[in-house]
Amino acid sequence: LNPIYAEMPVTVFEHMSGLARSLGAINLGQGFPDSPPPAALTAAALRAMETRSQQYPPSMGVPELRDAVSAFYAREQGLALTRDQVVVTSGATEAIAAAILAVVGGGDEVLLFAPAYDAYAPLVRRAGGVPVFVPLAPPGWHYDETAIRTAITPRTRALILNDPLNPTGSVASPEELALLAAIACEHDLVAICDEVWEAVRFDGRVHRSLMAQPGMAERTIKIGSAGKIFGATGWKVGWMIGDAALAAVLAKAHQFLTFTTPPMLQWAAAEGLADPAITQGLHAEWSASRIVLIEGLAAAGFAVLESNATWFACIDLAASGIALDDRTFSERAVREAGVASIPLSALWEGDRGPTTIVRLCHCKPPAMLEDAVLRLSRWR
Amino acid sequence: LNPIYAEMPVTVFEHMSGLARSLGAINLGQGFPDSPPPAALTAAALRAMETRSQQYPPSMGVPELRDAVSAFYAREQGLALTRDQVVVTSGATEAIAAAILAVVGGGDEVLLFAPAYDAYAPLVRRAGGVPVFVPLAPPGWHYDETAIRTAITPRTRALILNDPLNPTGSVASPEELALLAAIACEHDLVAICDEVWEAVRFDGRVHRSLMAQPGMAERTIKIGSAGKIFGATGWKVGWMIGDAALAAVLAKAHQFLTFTTPPMLQWAAAEGLADPAITQGLHAEWSASRIVLIEGLAAAGFAVLESNATWFACIDLAASGIALDDRTFSERAVREAGVASIPLSALWEGDRGPTTIVRLCHCKPPAMLEDAVLRLSRWR
Ligand SMILES: CSCCC(=O)C(=O)O
Ligand SMILES: CSCCC(=O)C(=O)O
Repeated sequence: LNPIYAEMPVTVFEHMSGLARSLGAINLGQGFPDSPPPAALTAAALRAMETRSQQYPPSMGVPELRDAVSAFYAREQGLALTRDQVVVTSGATEAIAAAILAVVGGGDEVLLFAPAYDAYAPLVRRAGGVPVFVPLAPPGWHYDETAIRTAITPRTRALILNDPLNPTGSVASPEELALLAAIACEHDLVAICDEVWEAVRFDGRVHRSLMAQPGMAERTIKIGSAGKIFGATGWKVGWMIGDAALAAVLAKAHQFLTFTTPPMLQWAAAEGLADPAITQGLHAEWSASRIVLIEGLAAAGFAVLESNATWFACIDLAASGIALDDRTFSERAVREAGVASIPLSALWEGDRGPTTIVRLCHCKPPAMLEDAVLRLSRWR
Repeated sequence: LNPIYAEMPVTVFEHMSGLARSLGAINLGQGFPDSPPPAALTAAALRAMETRSQQYPPSMGVPELRDAVSAFYAREQGLALTRDQVVVTSGATEAIAAAILAVVGGGDEVLLFAPAYDAYAPLVRRAGGVPVFVPLAPPGWHYDETAIRTAITPRTRALILNDPLNPTGSVASPEELALLAAIACEHDLVAICDEVWEAVRFDGRVHRSLMAQPGMAERTIKIGSAGKIFGATGWKVGWMIGDAALAAVLAKAHQFLTFTTPPMLQWAAAEGLADPAITQGLHAEWSASRIVLIEGLAAAGFAVLESNATWFACIDLAASGIALDDRTFSERAVREAGVASIPLSALWEGDRGPTTIVRLCHCKPPAMLEDAVLRLSRWR
């Protein structure tokens, strides 16, 4: 069997969720809300299921969703997209896989930033490429020009940017986006931009895609997720966007990964994207629960790192006076305190990264978050 | 961009369905029923959506579906499987992709049979492997021992068997299964068995999986599809089965392709698999509509090839007195007769195959099939 998979552990998300389920722990590990998606979304899916086709939709997605995605980005981010630039996928994970398989070939180097979502590097390797990590350092997690330029070689073919960044909740500054764009253009790189957290920002700013930078429109694959936008992680509806020529090639990678995505969920996501009240309502809810976790942790003496986005907050164990490394903390906290978390180093290849940072998910009911803080502070 | 995708056409299924939609033709091309899935299935999905979690299910699938798949194969095919042998995927296409990416590495040769579903060879190439085709010849589409043995080299790593076979509707005989198993064991091959048509047989026989042959349990990946079993092609619920060690590796390929599959559709599929009346009802319906197409075509002077399974019947143009090759026939019939079909040579790499065979889908309302036959016979 292919050693890339044979020697790979189960993802940390699946590992921690499995432990949380079997131990009955509060699950602040894997990122998902505890509540159902907005009622309007569920109603739209039920209606589609009762009244419309349940057979193969077009491989690139139903026209309604491809149009709704374009209109959503025009409204929210000022992007000018057309339907033929949008390829619907079975979740953003499929979009990441399709983009990497479409772009990366034998010996291509791909620039990644650590910490990184754990799917990127194995997929780059499975595509025949070589992941080259540029570390980001806490507390700012800034993109360092010298480090990036040093990592680039004539074989560098692409970069993968996750902005806003999971697990840190940090966001690239306008200057950092300009820098990354300039480097991508200079070295003729494709930018695979995992922007699934674009609608989950708490800094009051409008999300800016690397795709909108000068010279980037033809070289960017922008990836989005209805699961994240609507707090519907089980729906597995995502998309990838590129200029029409790029999208046509991405569609061919997609057609042999899943071919298509359940139509009732696509139509419901299209309805949801058209109604700004839905995303505003979710945003208000997530902002409130985020404060509950962050303030609760701080009041209990945990050192919470600054963050501006995502469903996650990170704590620094050392600065909190806890003398455990992150993996030990997470393995013990789920068993002994009954709270599941994600150790940051599980999302960091090699051993040069921080080992005292733990990620906690805050898109949960306030009472659950308060209970988790109480459990952690009693146990610590 | 990776030339495998950049130089690839859109699938013939998408191409013909797109033409059928834009021209308003009767679509007997891509295989899907015209009716909704059984009402009990839709009701089960609606109920799950209203009452159960819509967030990430476990990556390998909900336990209810993994158990239901095991029980289904025990009941229908006498296989003894356990939950940990079943990995749920977002359709059988994802299972095929995950299996190929998990098994095939750089330079590995993979034995394929022509005609072949069009996803196999590009995925083998994208995994770094080399597809080696063994042609099957009409009318029997038999597996020829000498041809297979000649195609095998020390680099042969796997074979892909699609049984029952799409597009021909033929089924491997017990002797052919024994032969394929003996060869796989002798040469230490992994067998990727796409058995999505296992429940769509019209020869009154119980489906026998290559997996059940002596020596095959540890080397077979058996792929199935709820979309085919229930006539719900938009649901995109499939699975792959292997011994527990193999399944654990397959799960890792799956976790970075889609991670998981919508839970409401998984729970509904589990309910459907538990009720033999549902599959029996569909089978009766499909048997009846199949006869309508086959007898209608024959009465109109088309030479229908013998078949025993799948949603498809093939006609031979030359034997029907039609002096067109299959691609020309399909391209003209959709435009001029208003009937979409699939030319067999679109599923045949290279040019050694028959070029006068066209596939028509029969899981459609009888009136639609009668209309299609009328249109074709008036136009021919
Ligand atoms: C697909 S499981 C991971 C979900 C997620 O984005 C996270 O928890 O980081
Ligand atoms: C995924 S589109 C192809 C569907 C099918 O199995 C067929 O028509 O052969």
